[in-house]
Amino acid sequence: MIQQMEDKIKNNRSVVKEQKGFTLWFTGLSGAGKSTISHILLDKFKKKNLKVELLDGDVVRTNLSKGLGFSKEDRDTNIRRIGFVANLLARNGVIAITAAISPYRAIRDEVRSMHDNFVEVYAKCSLEAAEKRDVKGLYKKARAGEIPQFTGVSDPYEEPLNPEITVETDNGTPEERAEQIIDWLTNNDYL
Amino acid sequence: MIQQMEDKIKNNRSVVKEQKGFTLWFTGLSGAGKSTISHILLDKFKKKNLKVELLDGDVVRTNLSKGLGFSKEDRDTNIRRIGFVANLLARNGVIAITAAISPYRAIRDEVRSMHDNFVEVYAKCSLEAAEKRDVKGLYKKARAGEIPQFTGVSDPYEEPLNPEITVETDNGTPEERAEQIIDWLTNNDYL
Repeated sequence: MIQQMEDKIKNNRSVVKEQKGFTLWFTGLSGAGKSTISHILLDKFKKKNLKVELLDGDVVRTNLSKGLGFSKEDRDTNIRRIGFVANLLARNGVIAITAAISPYRAIRDEVRSMHDNFVEVYAKCSLEAAEKRDVKGLYKKARAGEIPQFTGVSDPYEEPLNPEITVETDNGTPEERAEQIIDWLTNNDYL
Repeated sequence: MIQQMEDKIKNNRSVVKEQKGFTLWFTGLSGAGKSTISHILLDKFKKKNLKVELLDGDVVRTNLSKGLGFSKEDRDTNIRRIGFVANLLARNGVIAITAAISPYRAIRDEVRSMHDNFVEVYAKCSLEAAEKRDVKGLYKKARAGEIPQFTGVSDPYEEPLNPEITVETDNGTPEERAEQIIDWLTNNDYL
């Protein structure tokens, strides 16, 4: 009898452990490793059967930000929109990971203020290191003047003042940085 | 011991019954009652402690569709975007209610095809009845040529061919139509 009930607790498919929803908001320069680390986390969370969605550059460009340009106003609208969608997920028990540069502190803080559970992750990397990697060739184009208002080159990046987590991506592997984030989330009762 | 375990099953806050996520996609003329009925459903679902989000006109205009105009392309982008967000919620166990006119069949079917669980609700109402109500005064403006491409007046409305639910909003109260929808959802294992 007791065994049956224990089995019921463990196996009943209609009974699941409730997951804590939150937004894991990456910010940092282009090339700082936001997307790489967030994909690693996406895989790890999926393996733990956690509900998770990654709103990274491609997803956002295709599905959310069409029609927006590069003006300050349009960029702010884009970040607010990502924040709106992330919060819809977070407040319904899902982990929402975002990986936009989100260079402006005021808009990040505005997005934070919408949320109950917001974890800001600063992917900290020197401009030199990010530019040296230049995986997508964007810095080269920006230096050549082919991309206007490029963060770190012709537009400011405002560092977070009190991010929940800072990962120094100049050093170590993306895998190590992902583990650092998971440790923080575990120690702070998010996982 | 057994009683304790039964209590654990019933009361443990970390154990909840898993909810089925789906999108409840309203379509119909302006003034057909989509928004009224969807707000009634929102309240009823919340009272049942179900996870639910309503993406109605105001929410969408403020948070998702800024920067989009009234061209066919922009309207389609808007509907796809609502569908994208609804699906993010639905596939994570949330009820996503949408209440856009969504006049074009092809785009509705495209949104349907993204989903695992999609329930199309046709709020069926004669143009005459919708125009007679004209709660927001939009038909008057459209007839006066002040609103371009207004559905039912100067732009087509394409009825769904096989909606899961049709509610005839010419007759009965919005409360009755909401109950009709809840009955269908219950009988079809969505609730």
